[in-house]
Amino acid sequence: MEGVGVDHLAFERKKSQFDVDAMKVVWAGSRHAFEVNDRISRLVASDPVFHKDNRASLGRKELFKNTLRKASHAWKRIVELRLTEEEANKLRFFIDEPAYTDLHWGMFVPAIKGQGTDEQQKKWLPLATKMQIIGCYAQTELGHGSNVQGLETTATFDEKTDEFIIHSPTLTSSKWWPGGLGKASTHAVVYAKLIINGKEHGVNGFIVQLRSLEDHSPLPGITIGDIGMKFGNGAYNTMDNGVLQFDHVRIPRDQMLMRVLQVTREGKCVQSNVPRQLIYGTMVYVRQTIVSDASNALSRAVCIAVRYSAVRRQFGSQDGGPELQVIDYKTQQSRLFPLLASAYAFRFVGEWLKWLYNDVTQRLQNNDFSTLPEAHACTAGLKSITTSATADAIEECRKLCGGHGYLCSSGLPELFAVYVPACTYEGDNTILLLQVARFLVKTVSQVASGKQPVGTTAYMGRLEHLLQCTCSVRSVEDWLNPSVVLEAFEARAARLSVACAKNISMAANPEDGFAELSADLSEASVAHCQLIIVSKFIEKLQQEIPGGGVKEQLNVLCYIYALSLLHKHSGEFLSTASITAKQAALANELLRSLYTKLRPNAIALVDAFNYTDHYLGSVLGRYDGNVYPNLYAEAWKEPLNDSVVPDGYQEYLKPLLKQQMTSRL
Amino acid sequence: MEGVGVDHLAFERKKSQFDVDAMKVVWAGSRHAFEVNDRISRLVASDPVFHKDNRASLGRKELFKNTLRKASHAWKRIVELRLTEEEANKLRFFIDEPAYTDLHWGMFVPAIKGQGTDEQQKKWLPLATKMQIIGCYAQTELGHGSNVQGLETTATFDEKTDEFIIHSPTLTSSKWWPGGLGKASTHAVVYAKLIINGKEHGVNGFIVQLRSLEDHSPLPGITIGDIGMKFGNGAYNTMDNGVLQFDHVRIPRDQMLMRVLQVTREGKCVQSNVPRQLIYGTMVYVRQTIVSDASNALSRAVCIAVRYSAVRRQFGSQDGGPELQVIDYKTQQSRLFPLLASAYAFRFVGEWLKWLYNDVTQRLQNNDFSTLPEAHACTAGLKSITTSATADAIEECRKLCGGHGYLCSSGLPELFAVYVPACTYEGDNTILLLQVARFLVKTVSQVASGKQPVGTTAYMGRLEHLLQCTCSVRSVEDWLNPSVVLEAFEARAARLSVACAKNISMAANPEDGFAELSADLSEASVAHCQLIIVSKFIEKLQQEIPGGGVKEQLNVLCYIYALSLLHKHSGEFLSTASITAKQAALANELLRSLYTKLRPNAIALVDAFNYTDHYLGSVLGRYDGNVYPNLYAEAWKEPLNDSVVPDGYQEYLKPLLKQQMTSRL
Repeated sequence: MEGVGVDHLAFERKKSQFDVDAMKVVWAGSRHAFEVNDRISRLVASDPVFHKDNRASLGRKELFKNTLRKASHAWKRIVELRLTEEEANKLRFFIDEPAYTDLHWGMFVPAIKGQGTDEQQKKWLPLATKMQIIGCYAQTELGHGSNVQGLETTATFDEKTDEFIIHSPTLTSSKWWPGGLGKASTHAVVYAKLIINGKEHGVNGFIVQLRSLEDHSPLPGITIGDIGMKFGNGAYNTMDNGVLQFDHVRIPRDQMLMRVLQVTREGKCVQSNVPRQLIYGTMVYVRQTIVSDASNALSRAVCIAVRYSAVRRQFGSQDGGPELQVIDYKTQQSRLFPLLASAYAFRFVGEWLKWLYNDVTQRLQNNDFSTLPEAHACTAGLKSITTSATADAIEECRKLCGGHGYLCSSGLPELFAVYVPACTYEGDNTILLLQVARFLVKTVSQVASGKQPVGTTAYMGRLEHLLQCTCSVRSVEDWLNPSVVLEAFEARAARLSVACAKNISMAANPEDGFAELSADLSEASVAHCQLIIVSKFIEKLQQEIPGGGVKEQLNVLCYIYALSLLHKHSGEFLSTASITAKQAALANELLRSLYTKLRPNAIALVDAFNYTDHYLGSVLGRYDGNVYPNLYAEAWKEPLNDSVVPDGYQEYLKPLLKQQMTSRL
Repeated sequence: MEGVGVDHLAFERKKSQFDVDAMKVVWAGSRHAFEVNDRISRLVASDPVFHKDNRASLGRKELFKNTLRKASHAWKRIVELRLTEEEANKLRFFIDEPAYTDLHWGMFVPAIKGQGTDEQQKKWLPLATKMQIIGCYAQTELGHGSNVQGLETTATFDEKTDEFIIHSPTLTSSKWWPGGLGKASTHAVVYAKLIINGKEHGVNGFIVQLRSLEDHSPLPGITIGDIGMKFGNGAYNTMDNGVLQFDHVRIPRDQMLMRVLQVTREGKCVQSNVPRQLIYGTMVYVRQTIVSDASNALSRAVCIAVRYSAVRRQFGSQDGGPELQVIDYKTQQSRLFPLLASAYAFRFVGEWLKWLYNDVTQRLQNNDFSTLPEAHACTAGLKSITTSATADAIEECRKLCGGHGYLCSSGLPELFAVYVPACTYEGDNTILLLQVARFLVKTVSQVASGKQPVGTTAYMGRLEHLLQCTCSVRSVEDWLNPSVVLEAFEARAARLSVACAKNISMAANPEDGFAELSADLSEASVAHCQLIIVSKFIEKLQQEIPGGGVKEQLNVLCYIYALSLLHKHSGEFLSTASITAKQAALANELLRSLYTKLRPNAIALVDAFNYTDHYLGSVLGRYDGNVYPNLYAEAWKEPLNDSVVPDGYQEYLKPLLKQQMTSRL
């Protein structure tokens, strides 16, 4: 995307066999999306306030202050340039630094929109969208994360004063983790157990003011702070994840979010006619964005590793010529190219999830809840496997960059540290897989009783066939058939689910059986979700895709994605007899030739992500491949190099070198 | 190991079914080793200078200065207490902070001992062992890591002055990465291409003074600095990994390390009668210590995750009772217990490597080089798979601690960041696996021509049997037989190696075949190395091991280690027909019951590591399990909490909240 100076990777770009500009549009999802991304990312890259220099070596206080500065500048630009909501979101995205505004716009505002009544929205949204208040989302507690129903914070209705009393009865009930809470937020949506007349009514959301709008000091009864350093340099340490305790804090009754459940003046609980299922619709939305983010983070890591693998040379020089580019080693290709393919695969399944969300939303509006369980299971599973795979892939890309990948200037350590929380937030990945498994086991039993499964579980409708079919592959080329690949994945997924269901049914009681078999169940869920991704990639290829050579490249990527999974999970494909050992070997052979096919296009395929050097934030991943002089220059920015002789020499090194202390050594 | 206050895990410790004190001795390797570890780790823990508080939030300069302080205090204590070499090493180990002294003692001194002549040792070792000079090991360059023969730094002999001229001819020839180089070292062993009369004589080591012993300023012709921030908070940022360039720096001829190759006054190269193979002996030693370190790092992560999994409760509460400990979930057990088993497995294989090193050394002294290639391949492979597995396992342990594992106060982020370089240094793990593969392929062909393989490849002598044997398991219990497990691992390893050898022989030329199949070859190497670890664990159990219940526990761990590998790599076991799908399912069933057997002993099995809370450095892993109050207390140490209203409020938050800027949103 950059265009000045010598391009050290020009020879690679000349090799490519497809229309990169057309691929950029495919990657972005539409010409419009491409255009917005391109424009906003350049806008951010050219603004000195948004520079990312030395973020890794700043102390926590400077780091946090700098984030406040960027966030306030971002808002200024959003206002000055009169950006649309889409553009503003992109601006925050390309600034590429977690900030309290993420939670304000991404959780606080949506919570009010989704759970507030019309009056509540009318009151609070204008304040929030003008940023006259800053809000966060205070759910997780020190003692409770995944188990939301176990939250200990209480909201007790006081009929005398028409107020709720928000209280933290134990240490473990302290709110803990909410981003933006520690230092920046003035308000929060606080989740607490509703108690009326000594009776519990489940966990609900309450809008609570935390800090004075005059001087930002915490209001009486509120203890608030930052929970301390987190993984990585920079990374999420730009965020003020917070701790919060309430000592009988009173709020007016109308600050409970009452779209679904209302508490009357008399302290009666009244269910509104708004369906509770709406919450699941929101979950589908949030998880869809997480899957898209996975493809962003993964593509970014892959872009860095692919470019650097083309720059880096090691071994293989005969007769004094240049050494071999490490990207030409099969070991490098067999680790790197499946990740490149995964980036595209996650992109397309993320796109499809947008469609799914719209579909679910429309149905909900028509009171059709029939597809909700399937959509919920599907998004839960895809969230789980794409985020886990992406976290692992970023670290793999770092290792593929050899020693230099360990430097912060490679961008990869920070990308890893800032990404990994995605495996835990919005549903711990392990727990999500078990939710999927529960749905799969249920689907198996429903199919047995004649019910037709829908959506991504539709294949279960052909259970009889899938349990006895055999794979027809006899030659390497036979694998180049989407329906053959698909059926192998369907057979594996179906057989694992059915085996689990059978084993559970043999247990003394189903719950114990489910618990005992939970590791197997997780594997069945993964198989099911990988099938979804493979099938959506194949569906994408059945659409028309403009641009010379674009479809051919996507085809190669699709087979690499599917067959590398088949290789990695060959134990399951073989143990379920979905394929034979011979067929696995043929798939492996095909995979090697696909790597060779992909090789000349590797650089262009990461160029198609259209990332600025600013966004990439990596010396190793520079567009122009001019790595070494810039690594060298980067080193001299290190604060420790401010002086030739280090601080501490006089006190701790000189005495050592001079005193000639004698030891027994 | 700690003993004050309430023990929140006492109920867990009461459950254990074996003699923990006896196991502590087994873990340490001997009563003597246990005693030294115990004494020195307590010594370090009780010394306020060695506290690790707030290491994560220090800026780079403070962090580095603090390390200089610790290193100098360590030396003071070593001298004052007249510690032995063993004790001094342990002291540095338990300080648990990478420092320049690691390279001085671990690389600089050994390089002189191993590669210096008697006169050179006599001159330099006293200076080094009294720390009157500080040395580092300058091999890696900006452009060359793994390919040592490709190093570009030159050492040109000038006969006129009887000197070598050390020079960095290119940017990529800059020394880059050496620890201790950037700020602390006064000297280095520099690896450079020896050039005499225009002719190259390979890469050799040279002792070069870098800084003045008077004021620590770099000597003329020497440019030196720190290469900047690396992965993680604290972590390796306590180390001054450096960059170094030479502009025609002259050193006397006698500063080339000449134990193996000598340069005479007349510029003639003379090979000494010391065998070059000695270098491989040193490699065996270094890699053996890396394998032991892997078991240290892994056991530490596992200790934290196991204890916290017993403290943390989530879900599963019926009738308002306490929730379930997360360690009771099968998903948690199936991820965590194999790691616990791996820690013990790596421990014992590390112990065996010490024996191997002694054996090789004795043979070398008798000019017996026959076992060297096997020993070299074996240590290369074990270094590769134990460090890769450990790096992954630390991150897995972090995830097993849920959200709180992401806090620096959990100790896991820093442990991961400080550990991962082990996958790259002393031989990149990918390259090492290919070296093993080369040896395996060679062994296969030698066996075919009648040569008897030795040591860890002895099983290849039974190739004919291993290629056609079938696994006899028919029931779950049948797996509880060491020879059955061993043969399955042998069959898998042998068949993968033979298949690779066959496929290579079908290629147009063997080198191309090897390159093309390198991903498969790596898998064969992993299979071979896992077999070694399993077999050494089994051998350990054939020895007498004192202590009530100790052997029973190790037996359970051994099967968990082997069968969890079998499950993870079932694709290879099945595709080579080493076991059947039914047998894989039986192994899996056994595995689940072994987890249940291990469960009551989990806490005691990590107590057996005998780690102080200081060394663990983790609130989640505290011996007393008193996690929540300490997490809370830890948060308030965060510098950002020095003020209630954050720095930056006036400039960046107040204007936002007050100005009512309007946007299009």
